[in-house]
This record gives sequence, structure tokens and C-alpha cells, in this order.
Amino acid sequence: MAQQHLDPTDPTAGVVTGESLAGYLRAQATEFLRALRLHRETGGSAAGAGESVDAARALRRSARRISGSLHTFRPLLDPDWSEEMRPELAWLSGTLGLEHAYEGRLERLLLALHRLSGAAVFPAQAVATTSASANSAGPAHPAAQERGNLTVGAAKAGALLERQLTLARTRAHSTALQALGSSRFHAVADKVAVLASEVPLTPAAATTDLRPPAAAAEERLTDAVTALPLVTAGHPYNAEALVHGLSPDPAPHPQDGPWHQVRLLLRLHRYAREVLHGGKLPVEVRLLTAGQALNRHRDASEAAAAAAQAARTPRIAPATAYALGVLHADQRHEVEAARFAFQQAWQKQTAKVP
Amino acid sequence: MAQQHLDPTDPTAGVVTGESLAGYLRAQATEFLRALRLHRETGGSAAGAGESVDAARALRRSARRISGSLHTFRPLLDPDWSEEMRPELAWLSGTLGLEHAYEGRLERLLLALHRLSGAAVFPAQAVATTSASANSAGPAHPAAQERGNLTVGAAKAGALLERQLTLARTRAHSTALQALGSSRFHAVADKVAVLASEVPLTPAAATTDLRPPAAAAEERLTDAVTALPLVTAGHPYNAEALVHGLSPDPAPHPQDGPWHQVRLLLRLHRYAREVLHGGKLPVEVRLLTAGQALNRHRDASEAAAAAAQAARTPRIAPATAYALGVLHADQRHEVEAARFAFQQAWQKQTAKVP
Repeated sequence: MAQQHLDPTDPTAGVVTGESLAGYLRAQATEFLRALRLHRETGGSAAGAGESVDAARALRRSARRISGSLHTFRPLLDPDWSEEMRPELAWLSGTLGLEHAYEGRLERLLLALHRLSGAAVFPAQAVATTSASANSAGPAHPAAQERGNLTVGAAKAGALLERQLTLARTRAHSTALQALGSSRFHAVADKVAVLASEVPLTPAAATTDLRPPAAAAEERLTDAVTALPLVTAGHPYNAEALVHGLSPDPAPHPQDGPWHQVRLLLRLHRYAREVLHGGKLPVEVRLLTAGQALNRHRDASEAAAAAAQAARTPRIAPATAYALGVLHADQRHEVEAARFAFQQAWQKQTAKVP
Repeated sequence: MAQQHLDPTDPTAGVVTGESLAGYLRAQATEFLRALRLHRETGGSAAGAGESVDAARALRRSARRISGSLHTFRPLLDPDWSEEMRPELAWLSGTLGLEHAYEGRLERLLLALHRLSGAAVFPAQAVATTSASANSAGPAHPAAQERGNLTVGAAKAGALLERQLTLARTRAHSTALQALGSSRFHAVADKVAVLASEVPLTPAAATTDLRPPAAAAEERLTDAVTALPLVTAGHPYNAEALVHGLSPDPAPHPQDGPWHQVRLLLRLHRYAREVLHGGKLPVEVRLLTAGQALNRHRDASEAAAAAAQAARTPRIAPATAYALGVLHADQRHEVEAARFAFQQAWQKQTAKVP
């Protein structure tokens, strides 16, 4: 079952051992160093802001892949080295990702406020939303320009969110800059530089088949998906995501947890596939669609929490609070919609297997 | 096309003339008088409240059927009499229905507040929601009992809605009582009493086929359905219903209008079918499902408007306004869900025709 994607007729079958893993890790480490160099060159100047964002994204991208492969193929690697490396990579990609996350969240919420106000959304804005996570170098908050169309409540809610999330983003930016200058970061970068030439494989790794650990990663994914309430998610308008919309508990919705977990496991599965197939990875559109749905799930979940959080600001006007309530519910319905989209994508995927 | 439901092999075919219409109108008029008598007998005492509600519902039910048949089969009836009768019947069923509508709206909103608070909904409550429009004699506002589980905002929002909608309901009750004692009502009742024995058909009605006007009623329905944005409605989570959720315009959503119109046309089509088939009406489950979806659409649309209206109350707390915003968005999503349900039901219906 779990090995269903590992085609035995694959030309690479039989040669997928520790050497392939080492090649993959070396390539990702090289990519990491390239992105780091680019980031240092562009980070200082205002003109290079877009490139700097791209470089930070590439940095996180390879950090995630190295970290994920270390996890999935643990038995083939020096355990001490692995255990030291992984939390440092997680810290790095977490720290570097935060600024971008706040920026995307604000953009998502402002666009939603405009959509909910029946304001005409310009094509450029629509594109900006779609590609928000792919390219944040687009126009910064175009929605903020035509505030005239909004009600007082929606405009005030937008201004409040802009204030709070811009502050959070600025702080995240400073933290990221500090991190990149820290000795902790230099230690990680040095280790990755070593990894680019020398992968600490165990002696047995050269003859160890990579497919069992990759299959185990896929099995963890399918098990986690099986535990999701997919039958409910497959019924449109099940009203499940907003079920704690007015709950006294200010914590993020606990029902989102299993979905976030599947998002991480799907990512690990994708990276394991990359390791197995090397550069000849067949594009699995459905896996991509399912992953995008889970990204949207995460983004909407966090945007909904930000709207709820903003509504707890002391001394706001009732009209502002009302707009934030509508906005929160809207984003929770986005959460529900994303679950539906995942269910649809996943169903197709498993139906494909004969 | 429009005649697709009028099966030519039907045993009643060929005998469906003005006489069938007269029989139907006499039966509905008799039913009206029976309900009126029951209402007078039970209306005064508190013990007979449930029966009184049932009687008022039966009164409206037959008033709608008489009025609808007068409209659809206009050419077969004395035009002066018809034109005088219809607005009076509309006034009557509108006046009698208002109290019940406010009661159902409050119940719907309080149950939604509890659902959104993650509070356990007792089975009895769930049943009460489902059958709210079918039987309002159930427990009155069970949701109001366990306010302890709600946040301050949700509890205050519930109390505010309860105050406003109970006031509206009490006023509607007084208006209905006044109407039932008015000379205007007695004039309608007298006319219906005459109708129970003598239907003012035109001389040609006895030989006129009822099927062309019935087919025209169905055609008006299918035309109106064709004009609905059914493709959008068929895509779950299209986020269309909330698109003016924060619009500065306090009027009810104009996008709901065409759906309300289809609801009325579907009703006229159903009544025309009743006239054609007499007592031997085959149950058309899909027509029923589509009609229920449109009722739910109307109820949710009006509940959403009531929540938005309550949020404009001066000097409410921000937490109350926030809860009302979440509630408004929730009900607008119910509107969207009802459109989806209608689209699904309607699609099945037309797919059935070979």
C-alpha cells in the first residue's frame, strides 16, 4: 500500500542507496550557500529588496529539504550530527519565514476586507492574492489605497490590522537580521558548507536501500490523512470550521492541528520522493494541489486568529469589532473550503491507484 | 420543455378543466373556514397556544393556495373578483405569518450562537432547528437556558437579539389579533365562505384546458431558475453570499432577490400541480427538496439581516458587535449553502427528464 508510488519498473530502481541521499544533500547544501551569498549581496540595499526576499525564500527552501531528509533517512546518517543539525535548521527557517508570513497575512486580510465590502478588486490585486505566497515582491498592499470604498468599520478594522501586523513584521525583520549576524547562524552555515562536500553517512549507508524509509514517510502521511475527518470535509458547507468561532478559548482552533500535521508530513513525503528520483522527478499534480490546499488552510487559519486577536484590542469601536467578526468568520470558512479542496485532491489521488 | 411534467398518459388527462379548478378552490376555502373556526376556539386561551399556531398556519396555507391558483388560472375566473381577492389574501397571510417568522428567526440565531460557541447542542434542540418552520410549537428557545457556556460577547449578542426580536414578535402578535378582528378580515372571510360553495368561473371555463396556464407557470419558474447564477452556486465555497457582508448599504442583499422570486414561482408551480392532479398528486421529492432549500435561503438571509441590524444598535460593547459580525457571516454562509443545496436538487430534477 504505502509503496504504491515506488514503481518497480523505474529505471533508477536498484541504484537508490545512500549515495543518492548524499548527492541530494550536497546539492541542497550548495543551493543553501548560493542563496546565502545572494542574500548577503542584496540584503543591505533597498533596491535589492525583491531579490533579498527571493534569496531568503531559497535559503528556507533548502534548509527545509536538508532538515526533512535528515529526519526521513535518519538511519543512514551519523546520529549525533543529525540531532545537532535539525533543530538549528528549524530555528533558521522559522526565523527567516516569519516576516514573510506577517506580510502575507496582512495582504490576505486586507483583500478579504475589500472583497467583503463588495469593492471592485482590480486584476492586479487578484493576481497578488493568488501568488502571494509565491511572490511577495508584487505591489505592497494595493488594497490599502482605495479605502474610500469601505464602511467606517471595515476601514478602521483594516487600519488596526495594518498597524498590528506591520509592527509584528518589522519586529520579525529585525529578529531575522540579528539571526543572520549571530554566531549561532554562522555555526549552521559552516556545517552546511561542510555538508556541501562531505555527507556524514553511516558505513552501511552505501548499500542501504532508501525505499523503506521513504515508504515509512509515506505511510506516516497516509495514516495521518486517514485520521482526518475527511468524510465531513467532503460535504460542502458542513459549518465545522467555525464551530468554535465564538469560543471563550483564545487559543488557535485545536481542530486545525491534525491538518497542520498532515501538511508537514506531506512535505516530508515530497522531499523523500525528490531524494529517490533525483532530478528525474515526475510532476505529481495532485500532490501539489493537496499541498497548496493545506498551505491555504494554514494561511486562513492564522489570518482568522489575527482578526480575532485584533478584536480583543481595548477601546475599539463596535463597528470595527463587527467588521473583524465578519472577517474572522470569512477566514474560518476559507479554512473549511481548503479542507474541502484537500479532500477532493486527495480522493482523486487515491482513486488513481488501480 | 415546460410541459415535461404533464404526462400525456396520466389517467386524469382530458378531464382537467375548470371544474377541477373549482373543486380545488372549494376544498381550500373549506379548509380556510375550518382553520378559522379552530383559531377562534383556541386563540383566547393560553392552553391552546400550540393549536392556535397550527390553526394560523393552516389558515395561511389555504390562503396562499387560493391566491396562487387565482393568479395561475386567471383566464378561467371572473377578473374583477380575482383582482379584489388576491391582495386581501396576501395581506392576510403576510400579517398572520409575521409573528411566526420573528419567532423562528430568533430561534435560528440563538442556536447559531450556541453552535458557534462550541456549546453542546442537545438533540432536542437540533430537532427544534430542523423542524422550526414546520412546527414552532416545540420548546420555546431552549438555547436561552444555558447561557453559562457562552462568552460575554455571545451572551450579550443573544440577549440583544432576544430583546429586539421578541419586541418585534409581540408587535406582530398584536397586529395579527387586530387584523383578525377587523372588518377588512371579515370581508375576506365572507368572500371565502362564498367561494366554498360557489366559484366564479367564466362561462368558457368548464371546457377550458387547465394545462396551458399550468405549463406557463412552470415555464416562468424554469425561466427564473435559468437566470440564477447556478454555475457559481454549484461550486462549493464560492464565497459569493458574503460579498457584500461589510457593504455600506444597510438594505438587504440585492443578490438574494432572484432566489426569493424563484421561491415564490416554485410555490405557484406546486399549487398548479395540485390543481391538475387533484388528490392523486405524486410526491415529487426533488421539488420538495428544492423548495426547502429556498425556504432555508430566505430564513438565513433574514436572520443575517437581523444580526447586522442588531449590530447597529447604539452603545453596544465591542465584544457584542464582534459576536454579531461572526453571526452575520455565519448566516450568510448558510445562504450560500442553501443555494448550493438548491442547485444540487434542481440538477437532479432536470437530469431525470430523458
